[in-house]
Amino acid sequence: MSGKLIVISGPSGVGKSTVVSGVMAQCDTLQFSVSATTRPMRPGEVDGKNYYFVDHATFQAMIREEKLLEYAQYVGNYYGTPEAPLNEALAQGKDVLLDIEVQGALRVKARRPDAVLIFMLAPSFADIEKRLYGRGDTAPALVEERLNRARWEYTQAPNYDYLVVNDNVDKAVSEILAILTAEKCKTAERLSYLKEDN
Amino acid sequence: MSGKLIVISGPSGVGKSTVVSGVMAQCDTLQFSVSATTRPMRPGEVDGKNYYFVDHATFQAMIREEKLLEYAQYVGNYYGTPEAPLNEALAQGKDVLLDIEVQGALRVKARRPDAVLIFMLAPSFADIEKRLYGRGDTAPALVEERLNRARWEYTQAPNYDYLVVNDNVDKAVSEILAILTAEKCKTAERLSYLKEDN
Repeated sequence: MSGKLIVISGPSGVGKSTVVSGVMAQCDTLQFSVSATTRPMRPGEVDGKNYYFVDHATFQAMIREEKLLEYAQYVGNYYGTPEAPLNEALAQGKDVLLDIEVQGALRVKARRPDAVLIFMLAPSFADIEKRLYGRGDTAPALVEERLNRARWEYTQAPNYDYLVVNDNVDKAVSEILAILTAEKCKTAERLSYLKEDN
Repeated sequence: MSGKLIVISGPSGVGKSTVVSGVMAQCDTLQFSVSATTRPMRPGEVDGKNYYFVDHATFQAMIREEKLLEYAQYVGNYYGTPEAPLNEALAQGKDVLLDIEVQGALRVKARRPDAVLIFMLAPSFADIEKRLYGRGDTAPALVEERLNRARWEYTQAPNYDYLVVNDNVDKAVSEILAILTAEKCKTAERLSYLKEDN
């Protein structure tokens, strides 16, 4: 049986990367989908692990050759999901986790209605403001831009299948693992068990 | 927010009671719905805990006065779910588990589409045969009757939301707990978190 495609999005400041790392660490059947991006590599990042770092021409070629399941522009850079490795993992029965922004997530859902969309929330919107301002290293104008984007993202959250509130990292991690387990228990996934000669 | 109504069914010989006990032991927010029945009390059973044991006249009155969410006849006896205690628990935000047979479960789903229906399966149908014959204390004709009923129940399983395979009690228990967690993460259950002034 083919694996499940799990898509996680959440606004900047919601603590998503910590939760996603926790999920990946606790689920060895889950494969992380590495995105391609045109943004420059940051210190500590590894090509092919955090992202596939490519130049604009290469990214445009990937778009043209339809090698991306989805792509979007964010703060002047392209981000996209290479489709071939993802299909390969799913066909092998592995579940695949995509950590992508909202536009991309909704495109994935449109193209693959069986994808499971999880939106990560802060306990309250005020927490996002607090976290973004609290970082202290971001220009106020940029914080405002991120807050505006977070507000827009919240308006899209009702299109997701699940909402996970990050009021506690362990709880958020276990909720996402529970969602993955439950999705694999859905009747449509297990009809083969109902054959009497199974 | 009101609690979730979880309905579990499964054919005789699937090991459902052990799994249900495991679920109840591990989830203290979950309340077990005690059914009313006209069948005689068995040694070790407690009135009001295993069942509410009532006579036929009382059961008929409960039907007439619409005090039952569902009821069904099984091997000559009536079984039904008293609605008032269930509504009370749900209103208090408690989740309620119903362990009822297939006809009743489908009636609950028809009346309450937000109920979550879980069907418990054996790893294979041959396991049910093995377990029912293996008990050794049941007349072959009765075993055949139960097997026929199990076959019919399997035909109804696609109407359930989830299928849980009891190939391992701990795994089955944790799958049911995961389903409960995931159901509470569904977007419709958590829309209040999306209000900016939340």
